[in-house]
Amino acid sequence: MGKLKSNIERTSDMHIAPQKIRTGLSHMSHNTIAFPEIKAIESEINNALSDSEGTIREMCSHISGSGGKRIRPLLVLYCGLVFSKPSGSLEKAAVSAELIHMATLVHDDIIDDSEIRRSRPTLNEVWGNHSSVLCGDYLFAKAFGILSKNKLYKSLALMVEAIDSMCNGEIQQAQNRFNKSMNLEIYYEQITKKTAKFLECCCKSGASIGNADERQTAIIGKYGLNLGLAFQIIDDILDFRGDEDIMGKPKGEDLRQGIITLPLIILKNSDKYGPLANDIINKKILSEKDYAVLNDLLANTGSIEQSHNIALSHIDQALLCLKSLPDTPYREVLSNLAEALRFRQN
Amino acid sequence: MGKLKSNIERTSDMHIAPQKIRTGLSHMSHNTIAFPEIKAIESEINNALSDSEGTIREMCSHISGSGGKRIRPLLVLYCGLVFSKPSGSLEKAAVSAELIHMATLVHDDIIDDSEIRRSRPTLNEVWGNHSSVLCGDYLFAKAFGILSKNKLYKSLALMVEAIDSMCNGEIQQAQNRFNKSMNLEIYYEQITKKTAKFLECCCKSGASIGNADERQTAIIGKYGLNLGLAFQIIDDILDFRGDEDIMGKPKGEDLRQGIITLPLIILKNSDKYGPLANDIINKKILSEKDYAVLNDLLANTGSIEQSHNIALSHIDQALLCLKSLPDTPYREVLSNLAEALRFRQN
Repeated sequence: MGKLKSNIERTSDMHIAPQKIRTGLSHMSHNTIAFPEIKAIESEINNALSDSEGTIREMCSHISGSGGKRIRPLLVLYCGLVFSKPSGSLEKAAVSAELIHMATLVHDDIIDDSEIRRSRPTLNEVWGNHSSVLCGDYLFAKAFGILSKNKLYKSLALMVEAIDSMCNGEIQQAQNRFNKSMNLEIYYEQITKKTAKFLECCCKSGASIGNADERQTAIIGKYGLNLGLAFQIIDDILDFRGDEDIMGKPKGEDLRQGIITLPLIILKNSDKYGPLANDIINKKILSEKDYAVLNDLLANTGSIEQSHNIALSHIDQALLCLKSLPDTPYREVLSNLAEALRFRQN
Repeated sequence: MGKLKSNIERTSDMHIAPQKIRTGLSHMSHNTIAFPEIKAIESEINNALSDSEGTIREMCSHISGSGGKRIRPLLVLYCGLVFSKPSGSLEKAAVSAELIHMATLVHDDIIDDSEIRRSRPTLNEVWGNHSSVLCGDYLFAKAFGILSKNKLYKSLALMVEAIDSMCNGEIQQAQNRFNKSMNLEIYYEQITKKTAKFLECCCKSGASIGNADERQTAIIGKYGLNLGLAFQIIDDILDFRGDEDIMGKPKGEDLRQGIITLPLIILKNSDKYGPLANDIINKKILSEKDYAVLNDLLANTGSIEQSHNIALSHIDQALLCLKSLPDTPYREVLSNLAEALRFRQN
């Protein structure tokens, strides 16, 4: 894995952007942090997909060329590097995690009938649903093939756990659409299953390859879980507050689809505006004015701020987990990865 | 695996039906052959899916309750039993193969927008595309989870190979729809990838668990490959000649979708009727009369008969492979499985 440099650079070429999150809450200016291993990971992903044939190869090239934050493979990699030297195994496990992520995105785009992802047409838009469903399946198989070929059985079991969890979480979320009784407990269960568990499994995958002991693996898993919770909560905030151009989707899309996320749950529970918010949310069809009122309430009642504080508390918990791990340069990188999330804007 | 009886019974309760294939070619009467292990496999499939949660559990129960021929798990099982005693590992590998098959069926039904499979509504019809895509993904993960948990790494690698092949084969078939230059070579490549390879991998999976040596594994794989080719060719014949009630789909559906299969390829190549058939096939839109003419040509020019003979030759090749394997009672079962295919009618 000689291509992976073990340094942290500050540069303008970063995936997790430096600007303040547009919630009016953040108050730090922040230089950009680059994770130089991303380039090596990109190259390894392309390499892994280069033995695909014909159309599947074109499809894989299209999706891998669309970029992405590559958070999952970075987590696998860095969590391994906290405990061990760079290795081909770590790289393979990292790439597999990204292939699984890519497979879920391909299937998500079919489900949502999305035409654009990351400013490029989706696979289903270019090649149709038929080939896209199969390409997703191919990517799952490819990931398991890499893990199996490299005898990364612990990582393989973790990826199975992650997919199982994601499928259940996504279905649960779909079933809770327009659920008037949506509450904090259900929300947490959903975001844990659909997002945080995968990040936890990525961290454990890397740590297991780095031969971390059981206690260390559990701790680094908890770091990943909290990072995942923060990541999803910020995602849900950005759905109300993000820049549409940067996010690549219109504001308030979750609510329009009946997905009740943390800011709305907090608003629903507020003494003063809860009843009004509930009256609106419980309507069968919301008007544009209803959406505008909800947006005003979210901004002016502190629901967004409270949600963001909860996200920050998960980042703090993630950072706390790191303190009981070996004090290596890569522990610092994991810390930077969590810190960078404070300023996530897409 | 005490539940699996090591006997062969003749009974009316069978999945591979006894009647002659309706091609006018078969001339044997045949008692029904039951594979009593099917019941144990059904029970193990239900058992494997019993730890699923909520909706996914309901979906899995719906699909596993829809039955099926269970050819893939039977192949895993019997190919293992040729070389070794019954074992939990064989059973797990068998179940995993069926779960992967189920996953591909779920995704196929979404792709084809099918409403009915095996006389029951499809998952997408009951739960929608969203949950169905995820349920397919879940089944893939479940299969790999079982293989990984039971350390069946060789079987796992074989299942990866099978999925890879199926995805490529299905996409290739989709791309060759309405391909005027469709020929025998492309057809064979397609059916090998989309159908026969999976059966080959199932056979090798069982044999590897039974500790067959490399030569034996290759031979039993060739048995499975030929069985798969015969299976698919007969499937393609049944599309023209099958009983619509038994097949559960209208006749000539492949051609309507632009899928040119063996009987048509043979007809296209015939000196006398090839030009007429090509003229019809190459039309942009075929009328009902065109379909009727093609059906008459297929029946009266011997194209169906030739296709069936080719399928039978693959059954013969499969049987020939068995001759160089240890002469055990389960070699006889594999032989019966191939023989039963001669009379497949759904």
